[in-house]
Amino acid sequence: MRIVIVGGVAAGMSAAARARRLSEDAQIIVLERGEHVSFANCGLPYYVGGEIEDQSSLLVQTPTSLKASLNLDVRTRHNVTAIDPARKTVRVETNGRSEEIAYDSLILAPGAVASRPPITGLDDSTRVRTLRRVDDAVALREAVGNGSQRAVVLGAGFIGLEAAEALALQGLSTSIVEFASHVLPPLEQEMASLVTAELERLGISVHAGVSAQEITPGQSSDTVLLSDGTQLDADIIVLSTGVRPDTAAFEASGVTCERGAMIVDEHGRTNLPDVYAAGDATISIDAVTGARRPVALAGPANRAGRQIADAILRPGSAHPIPTPLGTAIVRVGGLTAAMTGANRASLAQAGIKFHTLHLHPGQHAGYFPGTEQIHLIVHLRKSDGLLLGAQAVGKDGVDKRIDVLATAIRAGMKVEDLIDLDLAYAPPYGSAKDPINMVGMAGSNVMDGVLKLWYAEEWEQWKDRALILDVRSVGEYSSGHLPGTLNIPHTELRTRLDEVTEAAASRPVRVLCQSGVRSHIANRVLAAAGFDTASLSGGMLTARAVLGEQALVV
Amino acid sequence: MRIVIVGGVAAGMSAAARARRLSEDAQIIVLERGEHVSFANCGLPYYVGGEIEDQSSLLVQTPTSLKASLNLDVRTRHNVTAIDPARKTVRVETNGRSEEIAYDSLILAPGAVASRPPITGLDDSTRVRTLRRVDDAVALREAVGNGSQRAVVLGAGFIGLEAAEALALQGLSTSIVEFASHVLPPLEQEMASLVTAELERLGISVHAGVSAQEITPGQSSDTVLLSDGTQLDADIIVLSTGVRPDTAAFEASGVTCERGAMIVDEHGRTNLPDVYAAGDATISIDAVTGARRPVALAGPANRAGRQIADAILRPGSAHPIPTPLGTAIVRVGGLTAAMTGANRASLAQAGIKFHTLHLHPGQHAGYFPGTEQIHLIVHLRKSDGLLLGAQAVGKDGVDKRIDVLATAIRAGMKVEDLIDLDLAYAPPYGSAKDPINMVGMAGSNVMDGVLKLWYAEEWEQWKDRALILDVRSVGEYSSGHLPGTLNIPHTELRTRLDEVTEAAASRPVRVLCQSGVRSHIANRVLAAAGFDTASLSGGMLTARAVLGEQALVV
Repeated sequence: MRIVIVGGVAAGMSAAARARRLSEDAQIIVLERGEHVSFANCGLPYYVGGEIEDQSSLLVQTPTSLKASLNLDVRTRHNVTAIDPARKTVRVETNGRSEEIAYDSLILAPGAVASRPPITGLDDSTRVRTLRRVDDAVALREAVGNGSQRAVVLGAGFIGLEAAEALALQGLSTSIVEFASHVLPPLEQEMASLVTAELERLGISVHAGVSAQEITPGQSSDTVLLSDGTQLDADIIVLSTGVRPDTAAFEASGVTCERGAMIVDEHGRTNLPDVYAAGDATISIDAVTGARRPVALAGPANRAGRQIADAILRPGSAHPIPTPLGTAIVRVGGLTAAMTGANRASLAQAGIKFHTLHLHPGQHAGYFPGTEQIHLIVHLRKSDGLLLGAQAVGKDGVDKRIDVLATAIRAGMKVEDLIDLDLAYAPPYGSAKDPINMVGMAGSNVMDGVLKLWYAEEWEQWKDRALILDVRSVGEYSSGHLPGTLNIPHTELRTRLDEVTEAAASRPVRVLCQSGVRSHIANRVLAAAGFDTASLSGGMLTARAVLGEQALVV
Repeated sequence: MRIVIVGGVAAGMSAAARARRLSEDAQIIVLERGEHVSFANCGLPYYVGGEIEDQSSLLVQTPTSLKASLNLDVRTRHNVTAIDPARKTVRVETNGRSEEIAYDSLILAPGAVASRPPITGLDDSTRVRTLRRVDDAVALREAVGNGSQRAVVLGAGFIGLEAAEALALQGLSTSIVEFASHVLPPLEQEMASLVTAELERLGISVHAGVSAQEITPGQSSDTVLLSDGTQLDADIIVLSTGVRPDTAAFEASGVTCERGAMIVDEHGRTNLPDVYAAGDATISIDAVTGARRPVALAGPANRAGRQIADAILRPGSAHPIPTPLGTAIVRVGGLTAAMTGANRASLAQAGIKFHTLHLHPGQHAGYFPGTEQIHLIVHLRKSDGLLLGAQAVGKDGVDKRIDVLATAIRAGMKVEDLIDLDLAYAPPYGSAKDPINMVGMAGSNVMDGVLKLWYAEEWEQWKDRALILDVRSVGEYSSGHLPGTLNIPHTELRTRLDEVTEAAASRPVRVLCQSGVRSHIANRVLAAAGFDTASLSGGMLTARAVLGEQALVV
């Protein structure tokens, strides 16, 4: 039995290692186009920034260590250029030579390459770099050390943000350019605005909603012209505008692709017999929306690779490859931003009706020193409260809450099930009612009609048609509030209902406070008194992020 | 509608607040025997240790703030001494006066009081303190400030450990005494040994497997005599040997109890009409084993209180109170110890057959600076892999993994489902294969027969009947190994199988390495070669904790 694997990083190497653990007899050949296998691709930006000091740390395994430990035949600088499915061979180019290698089973894990957007002069510049492989990171760190002073990062996705922070950490004057309206496009806007603020705190200049149009090479630096007319001088340009599956050779050999990504079934099988595929170069089916897209994330790639080894060597007892939730996380300065499942845009595209919750709980008990807010968004299906997606930004405890929510979504939980989660509580770690339990309580209230929400996006719609009632304290109100609102602290509301009646003048009342907790109480008081009332989801903390500071009067 | 609530801390105050949010009209009276309501009972040890500086931080709410915000009628120093279920009244003692208060619905949340073990002289000492209420913490911190130098903590449960650390932090020479064979009795022994080592690093003297027998009051200090003859001098003695439900008055009034804890149904109803109960004073049914016991944890108490308000005010649409998993966590110095679900003892008692997994993964990618091991135990049902319980000890990332496992257990997941969890990965937060995914892979291997485990507890049983093969490197082996073992590094095993055959001499082979990863590979090599072989669960890291350092030869 000979298993040939194309690509020796996440999916490919997971498949190889698992295959050996399942079979001592199999001959396992890994063909890797690049110089290294099993390297720490997610660690590259941290090497550029100097947090990972030694290049050797990036090389988790080598062909030699993999031979010794797992008896793998790992061949680097071997580029597979074609498959002959009839003869069950692959054509391999190496050092100018070409050879054919036969397979019984073939696993394609070629990964993705940086996509190159249509920017005039992009191909002429010698200062444009990507950050996909160890050599890229080494070259970028060398360039940083060679007196570079200004960097422009094109694309503010995960890698772009990590690269920008690394360059800023190395002392470069750094700008980041994003075509979408905000950084980290999969994040909701009110979450992304927190990330933008943190980037600016790190000294990074953020240009969102614009594209790079032209790169003009110069003697001492290049100039990047943006669509809004801004010109940025750059000693280093990092291209991180996204990736595309590296599948041309395989599609040409007959592997069925969809927009360039290989189509596989739940066991990783392509349309060709005994040819499997996994990782960034394959189409995945989104677990929440059913959308079909390649998912360029290390976790799903590793797991799919392992499951394919099972499908080959233990057919019949192999588990299907899980559909991904797209759970992802990034550190930006002192912040963590994370997400799992669907966001508003993907839900809208899928035609799924949903409620959104905004919460701003502390990561641990408020009375314990070092409390920091977690800004949390959760989407739930309107019909039954099914959890659909969540995002969080904060300083501490963000990864934990997103992982719990990812687990809950995978389990098919409804929002009310979160009330019952028995999570670990002591003051340094959480609260007796953990933020996750709070999501359950708030969501359950929404589903049961106990809590009616309104949203900051509806401000323009409501500001004249309703009395907007701000129930924060007088001091909080005077430090910044939305124009035309009435301030009655929630502690005085029961005795001042007459004022509400008068100011509302038969209009609905839309209540708000700082985070949504007090306005929920006030909303219940008003509902009991017969008002048409709703509570602002996420309160002023969310409203500031949605409407901007300029919407406030002081 | 008048709702009377007995007890104004976790369960009681959650019920009161929820009741108001559901009904503006209800009259809500909270009767609290102590001086304070809604105080931070889990924060008391940190106030003693000085991490929480101000006493005011412990008072999360006051009767005045609760009146203003939620229109609650909160009466402190009101001690309920009897219920008259026929007339639907409670008898209340306050300031030497006695009165009757009528209720439509009554919620009993009296909590628990410190149990007093049979120690000679316990009641005669003026130096014995408990740590249950704000006054206790204030008194203890004052005593610490008054030149106390030696403290003895009786009982090494959660509060005992937190109290001991607080006292050590304040500079007192501190001893802790535990009747069970190790600190934190619900922890498995191999986990508890890590906690014991951390306590000793903090300078705390640990006396486990012994009881305090006599306290002899002295002029300048007391003397505590332990069952092993040890005498400990103490300026302060903290009693934290457990709690018992504070239910005598209610049981006498006709509330059915089981070993002193009130019996309630899934909506918190006692046997008396319109009388509900929640919190530490009630019997819970363990979600995993079905065992009936009071659970003295803040989270379940808070949630039960809230659900009872629903049961009263929204009968029909109230969710049942969840059965607890007993999820708990404690910080000990630089370590975190946490657990969820069942442990070996409770599974054995329930007659449930299980496998145990030991893993020692890093909390994040190994190539990212600051990697720390998480020591993890997971129990799964032998018949089908259902997750039954988990424990973890480590420096970072422990709370996250236990919360994910608590969610998975609540969802009824099997161990193989953990493979598919799509958890947030970037190098500072986890690994492409998160420790939780690794548990899924290891457990799935065990269930499928791909991985056969042996346990350090079986050392005596196997050491002569099998060849014990240590597949660590020569350097690791020489730094400490079990006696009579053969060392062949796993990278050399395939070429040295003859040596194994010779040394085994037809006996089984039991393999081990440092953590269980390399021995899994070696185990597969040996299995393919026809040996009766198994891999040591948790490797030397677990063996050291189970057998002790003295079991090793260097």
